[in-house]
Amino acid sequence: MQLGFIGTGVMGTAIVLNLLKAGHQVTVFNRTKAHAQKTIDAGAVWANSPEAVAAVSEVTFSMVGFPQDVEETYLGDHGIFKGAAAGSTVVDMTTSTPTLAERLAHIGDEHEIHVLDAPVSGGDIGARDATLTVMVGGDRATFEAIKPIFAVIGKTINYFGTAGMGQHAKMANQIMIAGTMTGLTEMLLYAKKAGLDMDQTLATLAGGGANNWSMNAYGPRILAGDYTPGFFAKHFLKDLRIALDEADKMHLNLPATRLAADLYAAMVAAGKGDMGTQGLITTYNGWED
Amino acid sequence: MQLGFIGTGVMGTAIVLNLLKAGHQVTVFNRTKAHAQKTIDAGAVWANSPEAVAAVSEVTFSMVGFPQDVEETYLGDHGIFKGAAAGSTVVDMTTSTPTLAERLAHIGDEHEIHVLDAPVSGGDIGARDATLTVMVGGDRATFEAIKPIFAVIGKTINYFGTAGMGQHAKMANQIMIAGTMTGLTEMLLYAKKAGLDMDQTLATLAGGGANNWSMNAYGPRILAGDYTPGFFAKHFLKDLRIALDEADKMHLNLPATRLAADLYAAMVAAGKGDMGTQGLITTYNGWED
Repeated sequence: MQLGFIGTGVMGTAIVLNLLKAGHQVTVFNRTKAHAQKTIDAGAVWANSPEAVAAVSEVTFSMVGFPQDVEETYLGDHGIFKGAAAGSTVVDMTTSTPTLAERLAHIGDEHEIHVLDAPVSGGDIGARDATLTVMVGGDRATFEAIKPIFAVIGKTINYFGTAGMGQHAKMANQIMIAGTMTGLTEMLLYAKKAGLDMDQTLATLAGGGANNWSMNAYGPRILAGDYTPGFFAKHFLKDLRIALDEADKMHLNLPATRLAADLYAAMVAAGKGDMGTQGLITTYNGWED
Repeated sequence: MQLGFIGTGVMGTAIVLNLLKAGHQVTVFNRTKAHAQKTIDAGAVWANSPEAVAAVSEVTFSMVGFPQDVEETYLGDHGIFKGAAAGSTVVDMTTSTPTLAERLAHIGDEHEIHVLDAPVSGGDIGARDATLTVMVGGDRATFEAIKPIFAVIGKTINYFGTAGMGQHAKMANQIMIAGTMTGLTEMLLYAKKAGLDMDQTLATLAGGGANNWSMNAYGPRILAGDYTPGFFAKHFLKDLRIALDEADKMHLNLPATRLAADLYAAMVAAGKGDMGTQGLITTYNGWED
């Protein structure tokens, strides 16, 4: 199928490579062209704007950074909605606000363009290995039509309901991870200061009620001093801010999530937003003694 | 072997039954005798005090509620140290303070009594199925001598070092769980208010980076309105208080753990300390609308 992809970061590049491998034709755009080179080398075709990508694509995907980037990508002077033909489908895979997802779906309706929100989890490794979890909101018939393409890039494809519900599911995911990341960070700090054998502590906790994905994935990296991003801290902060904004709209108080956002905000303020989320531990006094 | 066991609560009872099944003779004491009946029916022998239990036991185990109960059990007028013979071993399985564990080991040294701290994780189900994780501190030779008995009641038996290190490992475990429980609680609240399908949300998150033991064990119970204790909220609060006290001693600031303790303190203050830890969600505005 003739596909478009806007946003060839680490995740986007890996996804495009899988789409090409499956035999799809993919037209790409990225704000920094150099970062699209890997997909071009693999057979993707470059276009000069989101508008130009959408104009030649039956289905256009986007995975950009922040909600304001999503707005620019869809609603800008050379945005997707300028180029997409009636009857085509656009899919935002950025983790963005449920409110914006609803707005894009509404604009799509006016132009007979099918709009889905489809944020993912699973990180760079999931994107590379096509094991992403995809959380989809929007029109169900559009989802069913697109599902085979999702199956090329992910392992678990879940439809959660109307526009914005994919984003809500992703927010739930991030709220859960806020708990595992803060818990992991403070557990490792305590264990280190108490003089526990760190590898043995990780192995022991993994065998019981404390077990969790973040600990198994990031615990060993932290012990090795590896804070390179699987997932950028600045993006996780953005996600938590969205979750808290949405919680406010729902009149919901989430103190632990708010504290996690505060801790990540301090990390970003300390110039560490380009570290992976596991770098949070470097912002605690006592870790790097 | 001739064993003693003090504290036949839900956990203690299950452990004693496994010890009896393995062919050991077990003498028991519990503050409320009625709660020891199940072990007596299964072949345990009742004694009237910790002192009396220790006097007839080669190895005496204790699993009581709070650190002050541990003090009373070991150091009271009819405590374990009054009855234990030189050369015998005593093992505190209560989750208690590392500081108290060190103190008991020191007193034991003076009387030629071997003392271990050996808190466990795995809850009532782990105790029943003999799949507990046991975290041991104290003299290594004593640990090695006792290890076959631990193997009767647990699956993963870990020696962490000198007296108190078993307790420190357990504190690390509880700090990690503070993160998974607060994250789980706020995730479920958000998901419910956002109108997500709750079962689908749990299943989706379990397939990715948000996966954790607490979510898998307690998520379905919460959705079923089941707040019966696998682990008492009041005991979890006690554990977090100990962790934070120890962190203070180590000059370590653990804000997420402190927030979790505040949330559980509010739960206990609301008269919900006898609920399971998963009952935390009932203290959030918006869950029981």
